[in-house]
Amino acid sequence: MESAHAKDVMYICPFIGAISGTMTVTDFKMYFKNVEREPHFVLDVPLGVINRVEKIGVQSHGDNSCGIEIVCKDMRNLRFAYKQEEHRLEIFQNLITRAFPLSHGMPLFAFSYKEKFPINGWKVYDPMAEYKRQGLPNESWKFSKINSMYEFCDTYPAILVVPASVKDDDLSRVAAFRAKGRVPVLSWIHPESQATITRCSQPLVGPNDKRCKEDEKYLQTIMDANAQSHKLFIFDARQNSVADTNKAKGGGYESESAYPNVELIFLEIPNIHVMRESLRKLKEIVYPTIDESRWLSNVESTHWLEYIRMLLAGAVRIADKIESGKTSVVVHCSDGWDRTTQLTSLAMLMLDSHYRTIKGFQVLLEKEWMSFGHRFAMRVGHGDDDHADADRSPIFLQFIDCVWQMTKQFPAAFEFNELFLITILDHLYSCLFGTFLYNSEHQRIKEEIAARSVSLWSYINSQLDEFSNPFYVNYENHVLYPVASLSHLELWVNYYVRWNPRMRPQHEIKDF
Amino acid sequence: MESAHAKDVMYICPFIGAISGTMTVTDFKMYFKNVEREPHFVLDVPLGVINRVEKIGVQSHGDNSCGIEIVCKDMRNLRFAYKQEEHRLEIFQNLITRAFPLSHGMPLFAFSYKEKFPINGWKVYDPMAEYKRQGLPNESWKFSKINSMYEFCDTYPAILVVPASVKDDDLSRVAAFRAKGRVPVLSWIHPESQATITRCSQPLVGPNDKRCKEDEKYLQTIMDANAQSHKLFIFDARQNSVADTNKAKGGGYESESAYPNVELIFLEIPNIHVMRESLRKLKEIVYPTIDESRWLSNVESTHWLEYIRMLLAGAVRIADKIESGKTSVVVHCSDGWDRTTQLTSLAMLMLDSHYRTIKGFQVLLEKEWMSFGHRFAMRVGHGDDDHADADRSPIFLQFIDCVWQMTKQFPAAFEFNELFLITILDHLYSCLFGTFLYNSEHQRIKEEIAARSVSLWSYINSQLDEFSNPFYVNYENHVLYPVASLSHLELWVNYYVRWNPRMRPQHEIKDF
Repeated sequence: MESAHAKDVMYICPFIGAISGTMTVTDFKMYFKNVEREPHFVLDVPLGVINRVEKIGVQSHGDNSCGIEIVCKDMRNLRFAYKQEEHRLEIFQNLITRAFPLSHGMPLFAFSYKEKFPINGWKVYDPMAEYKRQGLPNESWKFSKINSMYEFCDTYPAILVVPASVKDDDLSRVAAFRAKGRVPVLSWIHPESQATITRCSQPLVGPNDKRCKEDEKYLQTIMDANAQSHKLFIFDARQNSVADTNKAKGGGYESESAYPNVELIFLEIPNIHVMRESLRKLKEIVYPTIDESRWLSNVESTHWLEYIRMLLAGAVRIADKIESGKTSVVVHCSDGWDRTTQLTSLAMLMLDSHYRTIKGFQVLLEKEWMSFGHRFAMRVGHGDDDHADADRSPIFLQFIDCVWQMTKQFPAAFEFNELFLITILDHLYSCLFGTFLYNSEHQRIKEEIAARSVSLWSYINSQLDEFSNPFYVNYENHVLYPVASLSHLELWVNYYVRWNPRMRPQHEIKDF
Repeated sequence: MESAHAKDVMYICPFIGAISGTMTVTDFKMYFKNVEREPHFVLDVPLGVINRVEKIGVQSHGDNSCGIEIVCKDMRNLRFAYKQEEHRLEIFQNLITRAFPLSHGMPLFAFSYKEKFPINGWKVYDPMAEYKRQGLPNESWKFSKINSMYEFCDTYPAILVVPASVKDDDLSRVAAFRAKGRVPVLSWIHPESQATITRCSQPLVGPNDKRCKEDEKYLQTIMDANAQSHKLFIFDARQNSVADTNKAKGGGYESESAYPNVELIFLEIPNIHVMRESLRKLKEIVYPTIDESRWLSNVESTHWLEYIRMLLAGAVRIADKIESGKTSVVVHCSDGWDRTTQLTSLAMLMLDSHYRTIKGFQVLLEKEWMSFGHRFAMRVGHGDDDHADADRSPIFLQFIDCVWQMTKQFPAAFEFNELFLITILDHLYSCLFGTFLYNSEHQRIKEEIAARSVSLWSYINSQLDEFSNPFYVNYENHVLYPVASLSHLELWVNYYVRWNPRMRPQHEIKDF
């Protein structure tokens, strides 16, 4: 596909005022350039980052009677003004078509990107190798092929780790009792105590307190697999009141009468809609400029850090039950692909130093997020123009923010640096790599994503120096408990406030 | 002096509840111990840290009918309950006498402390050597001995650097026109541009716009000493409105009509009383516990970070005028020993990498703070029981907080670590070392502080490893401009919130 150009477009920069220049739209990026200025002015926006494009009123920009605002997913909005002339109208039409290819019957750019890297990132995650690293299978846990064709559970990976004694028939009955058939399966096992983290969706208890003896026995088996403990903790990420509402609609949670030896704990974390709203408010207070006099109370009013705190606090409780309590833990929310994923992956990051390496973190993402069906396509809306879709939510961003908070509290415990995390987020939206596309492993296999697109890990692992933390010390076998208090959390300004040039830390330090 | 002991005293810990134990009061410390508990419980409080001791009502602690609250200068309050018996009453009487020796006609503990260190910290600062390092004297600036007996200006150091052409008679006339006789003298000179930072007190302009031709000529000479610029900036740290009030009372500021080529800028920083009140509010929200749900707005309501921001922003403006503008700068407030000291020392820290080393920072403190007469005794109230004294103010703490903010923004630019800064603050109050005692160089010389007490730098420089930043890279000749925005400042929780065990970062990381 060719590039489209338009001269004499005006970028209305909130920091330095109006700048006229040339706009170029390719099938991957929107460039805006003015090379007559000193220093040169360049805007470089991957189309995937665009959330929506809107017409706006433009005043006092001379001949430029048309205005457009590009609202981005990465905390910035870009405004342009231009003359009402055909080729300029065309370029914005072009921009819209190319920014939302799926809505226009076109493929995502990742399928056109053919860059060759010395390392193949699609090989980073081998589920068998990862479970083997964890010491699996063992006498209590086995690999199950029940989902090898994705017929047992469409949103789960092909390879599942389940209790060794469980029969396929029983698994199917448990699946019938769990939302979307997402049965409890092993995510992580403690190398010594054998305490496990298993993840699932809510049980379909419903208003009449339906029971399922196979499900009850199954959880008992999970408890028994850990000889050290005669208790099983279930962390339900939801707010108790919301779980009750879900119960009335056919979902629900494990009652302690039906599940003896189980203790159910609600983590009271709000849902995806609340998180979307929180980030929307955050964007309002950080872009384009911040109000110094009300900064802290403005941040507080978004509740963003409060939710970060709840997630970290929940993950600390899970990790502590495993590590200090030597007790197995089951984690679920409603479907088990948003909050559950955040919590299991954060707890695993606290418990297992392998996930704190660059490649281990990639494995953690591929395993807990991609293979277990976090719905990236739905939550991010790749190539889709339906910006008001209620399924969109910054769940993965919120998780990466939690990881960043941990790197701040333990600056030497992670092999990767801040750029690594920001690069991951940038390519969550960019549609350059296949890594975050689609909603499940099944869809990715069907779309032959590994053959038809490049993995983000190919790019990253081909230049590890860029993404390495110079202060890294491998604290092997160390469990990290971050302080989950607002007083120890920070707003991640290098990510959320990065577009404001006045807020940029000094990189090049001047000489005398 | 002997130690006093009392058994069966109850410490009412806000974090773990009442603990009974033994209290010991020496002439330096108050210890409280319970070694029957696991882990052992020990409180260890240098008496110098005590701000006041008050009787409080005690309920439901059995026989313990007396209660006492020890309010500390370092953000904690300690409550004890004990039986109304003679030897216990005695120990608290003892505590009060020893905590406030000056109010009881006794010497400070620093004069009894005789520890020997391999390094003599009193030799850290040699004014001649420091000025020589800066390239002084030169053709425009000379050493003046006018204050060698402290008769010219009681609160200034013996050695002053003044314009080479100025005569002693003129200096005396300038002194008569400046509050407390604190004439403009050189603090720092740029090695290339020769732009200088000079510091002084306010001019005694008064309500009738009094002028002093020697003062006007003197500032002109300071401007002329820097051949590159035909302008001189005066940064008045005060709020314009307050400076006007001061003018009505006989003080004031330089009018642009009397001082051609001068541009006066008010930095609008509130006075010592506002800062004291701000820290009082901060203590309320951090001790004993914090309110998670209102943390950020509570921090905002103290204005502590806002004032930190104003100081850093002011110092950045000063440093930028020197570095980018190549223009000389005069800094004053009212007396020139609080805000002026904060600003000149912060600007020097930004401009001169030498001050970012461990020993260079000690030189900076000895020079700008101790030798130029920041009134430590008055602001801290060493050994004095008059806790409500309006002259007390956390000016030096506020400066150290600003330095900490810079270390956070430039983690590799400082040779010292966080412990170094916390140790300095702890010994600001401890009265163990002579370093921060008295209000001026003159008083310290008179009291023979160097012969009769140990320097904090003797202790620190004898174990530099403890205080070194492992990430330090010597950015020689690099000017650092911190981002002076609330979004880039943090509350220094490792200092202000350190007494809450739940808020402590993990130091010893557990093994599997």
